[in-house]
Amino acid sequence: MTVLILTSEQDVTADLAVAVLLQRGVPVMRLDPADLPGKAVLAADYAHGDFDGHLSVNGHVLSMGGLRSVWVRRPGEPAAHAAHASRWLTAETRQALYGMLFSAPTRWMNHPRNADQARYKPWQLRIAHLSGFAVPPTVITTAPRVAAQFTEEYREVVVKAASGPPPDDPDLALPTTLIGPDTDFSAVAAGPVLLQRYVPKRADIRLTCVGTRLFGARKRAAPDQIDGRYGDTGYCWEAAAVPERIAKSVHEYLALSGLAYAAFDFAEDEDGLWWFLECNQGGQFGFIELETGQAIAEAVADWLARRASDRRVPEGRW
Amino acid sequence: MTVLILTSEQDVTADLAVAVLLQRGVPVMRLDPADLPGKAVLAADYAHGDFDGHLSVNGHVLSMGGLRSVWVRRPGEPAAHAAHASRWLTAETRQALYGMLFSAPTRWMNHPRNADQARYKPWQLRIAHLSGFAVPPTVITTAPRVAAQFTEEYREVVVKAASGPPPDDPDLALPTTLIGPDTDFSAVAAGPVLLQRYVPKRADIRLTCVGTRLFGARKRAAPDQIDGRYGDTGYCWEAAAVPERIAKSVHEYLALSGLAYAAFDFAEDEDGLWWFLECNQGGQFGFIELETGQAIAEAVADWLARRASDRRVPEGRW
Repeated sequence: MTVLILTSEQDVTADLAVAVLLQRGVPVMRLDPADLPGKAVLAADYAHGDFDGHLSVNGHVLSMGGLRSVWVRRPGEPAAHAAHASRWLTAETRQALYGMLFSAPTRWMNHPRNADQARYKPWQLRIAHLSGFAVPPTVITTAPRVAAQFTEEYREVVVKAASGPPPDDPDLALPTTLIGPDTDFSAVAAGPVLLQRYVPKRADIRLTCVGTRLFGARKRAAPDQIDGRYGDTGYCWEAAAVPERIAKSVHEYLALSGLAYAAFDFAEDEDGLWWFLECNQGGQFGFIELETGQAIAEAVADWLARRASDRRVPEGRW
Repeated sequence: MTVLILTSEQDVTADLAVAVLLQRGVPVMRLDPADLPGKAVLAADYAHGDFDGHLSVNGHVLSMGGLRSVWVRRPGEPAAHAAHASRWLTAETRQALYGMLFSAPTRWMNHPRNADQARYKPWQLRIAHLSGFAVPPTVITTAPRVAAQFTEEYREVVVKAASGPPPDDPDLALPTTLIGPDTDFSAVAAGPVLLQRYVPKRADIRLTCVGTRLFGARKRAAPDQIDGRYGDTGYCWEAAAVPERIAKSVHEYLALSGLAYAAFDFAEDEDGLWWFLECNQGGQFGFIELETGQAIAEAVADWLARRASDRRVPEGRW
């Protein structure tokens, strides 16, 4: 039974888990969907009263019946490396590859259907609230008046991008930025803004979840630091105990969202309360493992290595 | 309690259901996501210990608490009509709009999360098989040898596009085409092909499903007609009884896929057996209603008009 990892060639985080899997003798196939068709060959068979499929990469063949689990790490766009790449070839190849994989009775970290929904930040806030997390007051709006009222009410407010950096300039730094009630919000009418009450924090918390296993990490924040991702404060990530109340909410969140892996970001305030900021279903863990020594890659490998139950129905069902 | 319809301005099929809803005094809001920001204004509030949101179109305001149901018909790309349209503005606006709607405890026809998965044709074949439908033997492959073997085995085979017409040429006609074992399959290595055993048919069947209500329609096929969508045979769509066994499988398929609306295509063979060809979660019904007189728009309006249950958790959960 083989673990399939969908990722591009340069992926050091994947390498960490692959090393553990190979040590344990668990077969691994690594595929960048960009290499299909080409380096990779696919055949999905819905012919003989049932379903089977095969994926072949560099001469190694994986049968869908022998698929233990799928780890969706950083897959390239299907057919992106093809000699005659086109949007249509990408669409047809996506249908062939993911259509076949979705048909297999396997375990997913994470199923693309759940991952896609989990990327919606406003939805994250709602699910976080329903799961019992403390969520800082937030508004997303295209109404300048609503943005101004929110800032008037909470005084110290941060502005964030909802979707991440611009697709045409993915390396652009967009640090979360503190603004005040004197801000001119007229441009909000031309594009939505996400505003959140500023949480003065003594630390950033990163909580990495692999199935039911939780790895808490804390990094002290400099007094005037708004966005922990930018600027070097000299502090490092250290392992942190996860309060039981938080663990309960995490399990509820994962159940509601259908995620097997997630990286939560919290702001720890002066009273020690963890405020939910976001949940990244594809968040990195390599830098945390490096600084805290937590065995996250091993936990990922453990999860991937577990055998699929023998249910016939694919995972991504309603 | 208002019905929200996400569609572009030109949508005659939506008009049919809107007319029924208005007759019954059910408030309707129509929004093309392309008009946000601009004609439409949005405010999603995650601030006061709970969630609420508002959508305003041409001065009419809809509160998320007053959202009865959402009908995803033919929505434009978010922000496509904006003065400064860009991929980033589209990404941010998609987050704002769908993130807010996904947070609401409403009913969806169909939830985008389920609709996206339901578009995968290979997955449709698997779910159809698990639901008990007769599915013609099918293969999807990038291996010329596999394509040749399949055609050798079944002799009369049709070739189809998996994803539909090319995104750069959406009006290109791509009729399902009959091929034989003498076909040269070498080009399959450059792009996946979908081959299916040809089902000689006496009729095309369109089965439109609205919640639990089924509308069967039959159109006689000319003896040598392969693809019922092209060419005029002089036959019309007529209402057809739905066999009990088929109805059972349809309900199973909808349960597995989480769809509230779907249009199934079958080929009826000489023995009267219905062979599953595909299930289009966004399939048109206007032309069927016109020719058969079946009250499908009314059934859609009935479904949309039902009040949301008072569950707090959004529909699109795992």
